[in-house]
Amino acid sequence: MIRTTCVVGAGAIGSLYAAHLARVAESHVLTRRADHAEALNSQSLRVSGRADFTTHVSAAVAPDALSEPDVVIVATKATGLEPAARTLSGHWPAATIMTVQNGLGAEEIMRRHGDWQLVSGVTFMSGTKHSDTHVEYILDTATWLGPWEQTPYERVAEIADLLVASGLKAEALPDLRPAQWSKLIFNASVNTVAALTGLPHDHHFAAEGNDADLGRLLRGLVDEGKRIAAAAGVELHDDPWEMNVLATKRGSAHFPSMLEDVQARRPTEIDLITGALVREAGRCGVDAPLHTALFHLVKAREEAYAA
Amino acid sequence: MIRTTCVVGAGAIGSLYAAHLARVAESHVLTRRADHAEALNSQSLRVSGRADFTTHVSAAVAPDALSEPDVVIVATKATGLEPAARTLSGHWPAATIMTVQNGLGAEEIMRRHGDWQLVSGVTFMSGTKHSDTHVEYILDTATWLGPWEQTPYERVAEIADLLVASGLKAEALPDLRPAQWSKLIFNASVNTVAALTGLPHDHHFAAEGNDADLGRLLRGLVDEGKRIAAAAGVELHDDPWEMNVLATKRGSAHFPSMLEDVQARRPTEIDLITGALVREAGRCGVDAPLHTALFHLVKAREEAYAA
Repeated sequence: MIRTTCVVGAGAIGSLYAAHLARVAESHVLTRRADHAEALNSQSLRVSGRADFTTHVSAAVAPDALSEPDVVIVATKATGLEPAARTLSGHWPAATIMTVQNGLGAEEIMRRHGDWQLVSGVTFMSGTKHSDTHVEYILDTATWLGPWEQTPYERVAEIADLLVASGLKAEALPDLRPAQWSKLIFNASVNTVAALTGLPHDHHFAAEGNDADLGRLLRGLVDEGKRIAAAAGVELHDDPWEMNVLATKRGSAHFPSMLEDVQARRPTEIDLITGALVREAGRCGVDAPLHTALFHLVKAREEAYAA
Repeated sequence: MIRTTCVVGAGAIGSLYAAHLARVAESHVLTRRADHAEALNSQSLRVSGRADFTTHVSAAVAPDALSEPDVVIVATKATGLEPAARTLSGHWPAATIMTVQNGLGAEEIMRRHGDWQLVSGVTFMSGTKHSDTHVEYILDTATWLGPWEQTPYERVAEIADLLVASGLKAEALPDLRPAQWSKLIFNASVNTVAALTGLPHDHHFAAEGNDADLGRLLRGLVDEGKRIAAAAGVELHDDPWEMNVLATKRGSAHFPSMLEDVQARRPTEIDLITGALVREAGRCGVDAPLHTALFHLVKAREEAYAA
C-alpha cells in the first residue's frame, strides 16, 4: 500500500508527477530552493494542457522536514542526480526510490548513496514549467518502469498502478533495459544534434533524400547505437529510428532539453546519455566514432560557455 | 611586367593585398558596395598591426569602371566566389586571375565563367577589418601560389615576387595541391569544430590526455583527412596535426571565420571546405564518417538560423 510519495526535483517532469500523485496519495516534494518549497506550501499547484486541475503538495528543502514516504521519484535532471542522492543519503531506508533520468547509470549513482530498494524508470512525457506552481502538460506519453537488482516486480507494478490511477500513463516491465536503451539511443542521437545545430527536433532529423540531408547523420547515429546495444546483449523495445521519424511528425517541433541547456549555457546531460553509450561501446569492444565525436563536441560546447 | 593589379572583394584579406600591392603597382579594388568603393576612393587605406602605413587604391563596383589589370586576386570568401566570377565574366581576357579561397574548387568556379589564365593560391595571413578603410594585419604568414592548368610557372613566380616586393610573404610552388590540401584538412578539422562548439582555436584543440579531450576528435578528423589525401594521390606539404598544435600555441586564440559566420548567422564556407573533402573521399572510395558528420551538423546549423 502506497500512502505517501515524495518527488525529488520539481522541474516540469517532477511537478507533473507530484501534482498527479496528490490526487491519489499524500504528495510531498523535496526541492532545492527554499522559495520554491514556500510557494508550493502556500499556493496550489496547477496543471494545464493535457490535464487541467489544481492540487496541493507539501514541500521542503530537507528530508527531515517531511515524513518518510513509501515511494520516492527522483525527477531531477541527470546533472542534479548526484546532489539529490547526497541529500537523501541516510534518510528513508524503507522507501522505494525510482529514478527517471535520461541515459544510463542513474541507479548506480543512487546505490552509491544508500541501500534503498530501487526501481528503474524512463519517462516519455514532457511539460513546460511556467512558474514554481504552474506546469503545462505537453506530451502525455508513458513512464515505463522495471525492477533494479532484487526489487520484486510486484513492487514495480504497484507503482505503475498508482501512476495510472493518478492520471498518468505508465507501464511496468519485467526488464526495463530494452526500453531504457531505446530511449538512450534516441536521446544520444537527437538531443546532441539539436544542441549542436540549434534546430528543434523537426523534419530535418528524418530527411534522407539528399546527401546533405541531416537525416543521413541521424540514421548513422541510430545504426551505431543499435550495434552497441546488440554487442551489450540488449534487444531494443522500440526502434530509435522509428521513434525519431514519429516524433518529427508531431504538430510542433520539440525542443530537446539539451538544446535548452546549451542555449541557457547550463551543463548538459551529455555524460549520462552519450557518455554512457560510448562507455558501453568501449566495454563491449565496439567502435563508436559518431557518438564519440558528438560527445567531444558537446563537452567542448560546455567548455566554451564556461570560459 | 605587372603594372596594374585588381583585388576583388575587400574584406580583411582583400584589403591587406590591395594596400600592400599599392606600394609596388597601380592597385585597384572591385567591391560589392558602392559606399565601400566611395570610401576607398575618397580616403586613404590604412594598415595597422604587423605593418603600419597608409596608401591609396582606386575602387569601383563594376569592372568597366576600371582599366584592365595584369593580375587579379579574387579575395572574396568562398561564399562570394560565384557572384564575383559572374561579375568578372566577359571582362579582362588578358588578365591572370588568382583565387585564394579556403577549400577546393575555386579555380573550377572561375573557369566556368571565363578563359582567363588562372593561378591557385592559399593564404595563411589573417587580419581584422576595423572599417572600410582600416585593416589590422594580424598574422603575417605566407600566401602560397601555383599554376592551374596550362599557366606557366614563370607567371606564378612573377606574382609571388610582386607580393614579396609589396611587403607580404609569398612563395611560388610548382604544384600547389600539397599545400592546398594541408590547409584544406586543417580548416575542415578546426573551423567546423570551432563553429559547432563556440570555442576559438585554443588549447582544447590539441589536448589529448583524457578520453573526453577535444584533441582526440581533432586527431581523428586529421587522420581521416590524411587518408583521403593519400587516396587522392596528394602528398601533403605540412602535417595538418602539427599546424593545429602550432596554431594553438600562439599568444591569442584565433577565431576561425566559420565561427564568426555562425555567430553572425551568415552562410559558411562549409561547401568548399568539408563539402569538397567529403566529395573527394567519395570520388576515391574512402570512408569519411567524421567529416561527413561535421558537414551535416554545420549545414543544419545554417538551416537553423535560416529558419
